[in-house]
Amino acid sequence: MAYTPGVARVCEAIAERPELACEYTWVGHTVAVVTDGSAVLGLGNIGPAAAMPVMEGKAALFREFGGVDAVPICLATQDPDEIVAVVTALAPSFGGINLEDISAPRCFDIERRLAETLPIPVFHDDQHGTAVVVLAALRNAARVLGRDLGDLKVVICGAGAAGVAVTKMMVKGGVDPARTMVCDTRGVIHRGRTGLNPAKAELAELTNEAGVSGNIAEALRGADVLIGVSGGSIDEAAVAGMTPGGAILALANPTPEVDPTIAARYASIIATGRSDFPNQINNVLAFPGIFRGALNSGATRISDGMKLAAATAIAQAVEPPTAEAIVPSPLDPKVAPAVTAAVADAARRDGVCR
Amino acid sequence: MAYTPGVARVCEAIAERPELACEYTWVGHTVAVVTDGSAVLGLGNIGPAAAMPVMEGKAALFREFGGVDAVPICLATQDPDEIVAVVTALAPSFGGINLEDISAPRCFDIERRLAETLPIPVFHDDQHGTAVVVLAALRNAARVLGRDLGDLKVVICGAGAAGVAVTKMMVKGGVDPARTMVCDTRGVIHRGRTGLNPAKAELAELTNEAGVSGNIAEALRGADVLIGVSGGSIDEAAVAGMTPGGAILALANPTPEVDPTIAARYASIIATGRSDFPNQINNVLAFPGIFRGALNSGATRISDGMKLAAATAIAQAVEPPTAEAIVPSPLDPKVAPAVTAAVADAARRDGVCR
Repeated sequence: MAYTPGVARVCEAIAERPELACEYTWVGHTVAVVTDGSAVLGLGNIGPAAAMPVMEGKAALFREFGGVDAVPICLATQDPDEIVAVVTALAPSFGGINLEDISAPRCFDIERRLAETLPIPVFHDDQHGTAVVVLAALRNAARVLGRDLGDLKVVICGAGAAGVAVTKMMVKGGVDPARTMVCDTRGVIHRGRTGLNPAKAELAELTNEAGVSGNIAEALRGADVLIGVSGGSIDEAAVAGMTPGGAILALANPTPEVDPTIAARYASIIATGRSDFPNQINNVLAFPGIFRGALNSGATRISDGMKLAAATAIAQAVEPPTAEAIVPSPLDPKVAPAVTAAVADAARRDGVCR
Repeated sequence: MAYTPGVARVCEAIAERPELACEYTWVGHTVAVVTDGSAVLGLGNIGPAAAMPVMEGKAALFREFGGVDAVPICLATQDPDEIVAVVTALAPSFGGINLEDISAPRCFDIERRLAETLPIPVFHDDQHGTAVVVLAALRNAARVLGRDLGDLKVVICGAGAAGVAVTKMMVKGGVDPARTMVCDTRGVIHRGRTGLNPAKAELAELTNEAGVSGNIAEALRGADVLIGVSGGSIDEAAVAGMTPGGAILALANPTPEVDPTIAARYASIIATGRSDFPNQINNVLAFPGIFRGALNSGATRISDGMKLAAATAIAQAVEPPTAEAIVPSPLDPKVAPAVTAAVADAARRDGVCR
C-alpha cells in the first residue's frame, strides 16, 4: 500500500531538501499545459471547457515526442492577475509550465510575470514554439535560396502572440531588424503609429527603420520573405509586389493567409501550417524537445540561447534542405531527441540550471 | 497529428454544450488530488513539495482501485481564500476534487465553499473517507458484539478533520448523539466550553447531552466504543474505564492512540490504521469507489446518502463480519466496484445528478 511509513520518509527528505522533489516524484518529468481558452486554434475565445480537446492533444504530443508527462489545465478565469496567481500556486506540482492559446496582448504580461517569479521554465508555446520552428524554416529557406539571413527583407503579417515572438526570435537569429516590417489589421507597424499596445510599440522601435506606413502591400513591395501568422488573408495583388524567388510561410490554419497555389506564382519556397502540403510548420517540432531538454538539465527558465539552439537543431534535422523540405516532418522521431540535447547543452552554457 | 481540423469540431461541440466535455475529454474520468501540505500524514505542515509523494500514492490508488485518473496538485499557498480561488479556477479541467491533508479547522470552510459553488463533487478525504470507513467498521462491530448501533456509547478522541466528520457521519448512520462524546487536547467538548472553533461548537451542540466535562477519562467511563482519530495517545488508565467487551478503533498512524495489545485487555474488537494488525481502517476502501460512482452517475456533489451508501457497501463486503474482520482488506478488489454501484444508485436517488 502507498500508506506505509516508507512514504513519510520520502516526504521528510523533500521537506529538508525541496530540490529532491524533482528526483523522488513526478515533478521532474511533468509539465502543466495551461490555457484560459481565450485564443484556441482559429476558434478564438471559446472558454476553458471547449479548449480541453486541444490541451489533451498537446499533452499526448508531449508524451509521444518528448517523453514528458503533461497535464492539461483549463482555467475558469481569463483575468491576468488571477491566471498568474493560479499558475504560481500550481508551480510546486510541475517541472515546467506550457502556456497555451492565451490571447495577445494579455499573454505577454502573463508569461513575463510568471517567468520572473517561478523557479521552473515557463513557455508560451504559441509565441516561442512557433518562433523557434519559423526561425529553423527561415534558415533553411535562406540556404536553399542561396541567400544570407541578414540580407533578406522579411515581412511578418500578424502582431499577436506568434507575430511578436517570431519577429524577436528572427532578429536574434540574424535577420536584419531595420529592414523587417510587421503588419497588423491596421497596416504596417511604425514609430509614428499611435495606440500601439506595449508589445507592438516595442516592434515599432525594433523594426521598420525606414518608417514605411500604409497597408501590407506597401510592406511587401520588394520583400523576399512573407511570414503569415495572422489568421487573416492577404490579397494576391499585395503578394505580387514581392521580389520573385523568395519564400512565403503562410501559417494560418486551416486556411493559409495566401493559398499555396497562388503563393507558388510569386515565391520559390512555400510553407504552411497544414499537413497536406509540403513544409508543415508545426510547433511539435519544438516544444517536446525544448521541455525535455529543460527538464533534463534542471533549467529554471527557457533562455534565448536554448530557443536558438532548438531552432538550429530543427534546421539541421533536414540535410540538405530543399524547397520542399525546409523543415523535417512533424512525425520525424529523430527531431525531439536532437532538440533535447541541444537545449540541455544551451541551458548549461547559459548558466540557467539549478 | 492532434492538430487537424477534426479537433476544432470537438471544441465547437463542447463550446455549444459544455456538458459534452465529460464525454469527449478526460474530464469525465479525472479528479484532482489537491493539498496545501498543511497536515500531511502525521508529519504536519511540511508544505506542498514534500506532500507530493503522498498525493502521488493517492493518485495511484485512485487508478488501481477506482479506474479513476487522478492528478496530484500541491499548492504553493495555505491561504483559504487563495485555495478556494485556485481550485475554482481548476474546476473545468476535472470531474471531481479530492481535497487531501488540509489542516482543520481551515479544511471545513474550504470544502464547504467549494462544494457550494462548483458543479462537480468536492470531497475532503481526511474527513469523509475516514468517516465512511469508520461507520462501516462500527456497524459491523455492533453486529459482532450483538448490539444495536443506537445503544452504543461512543467516544471520539480527536476533533480535527477526521474527528468532526466521523462524529457527524456516525450520527447520520444511527449512533445516538446524546450519548456520544468528542474529546480534543483540552478534554471533553461540551456546551459550557469557551473558545471552541465553529466546527467544535457544532459538536458541542450535537453531542454530550449530559454535559460531561473534564479529560478523556471522564468521557470513557462506561463507554462501549473508543474511536481515536487524534494522532495523540491515550492513557491505559482512561481506557480501563470503558465497559468491557466493546470496541477500540485507534487509528493514529504509525502509532495508534492505544497500543493494540493494551487495547485487547479492555475491548473485544480492535482496529487500527496499520496494515500489520487485523481490521485496518484505510480510506482506500472508500474514496476510489465514491469518486467512480459519482463520476459514473454524473453527480454534482457527494450527498450524505452517497456516503451512507458507501459505508453500507463496505460493511457488507465482509459477510459475516468477525472480531478480526469488521472491514474488508484494503486490497480486496471487490470493494470498490460494490461502493461504485451503491454510490451511483444513491446519487440518482438523491437527485444530485446532472
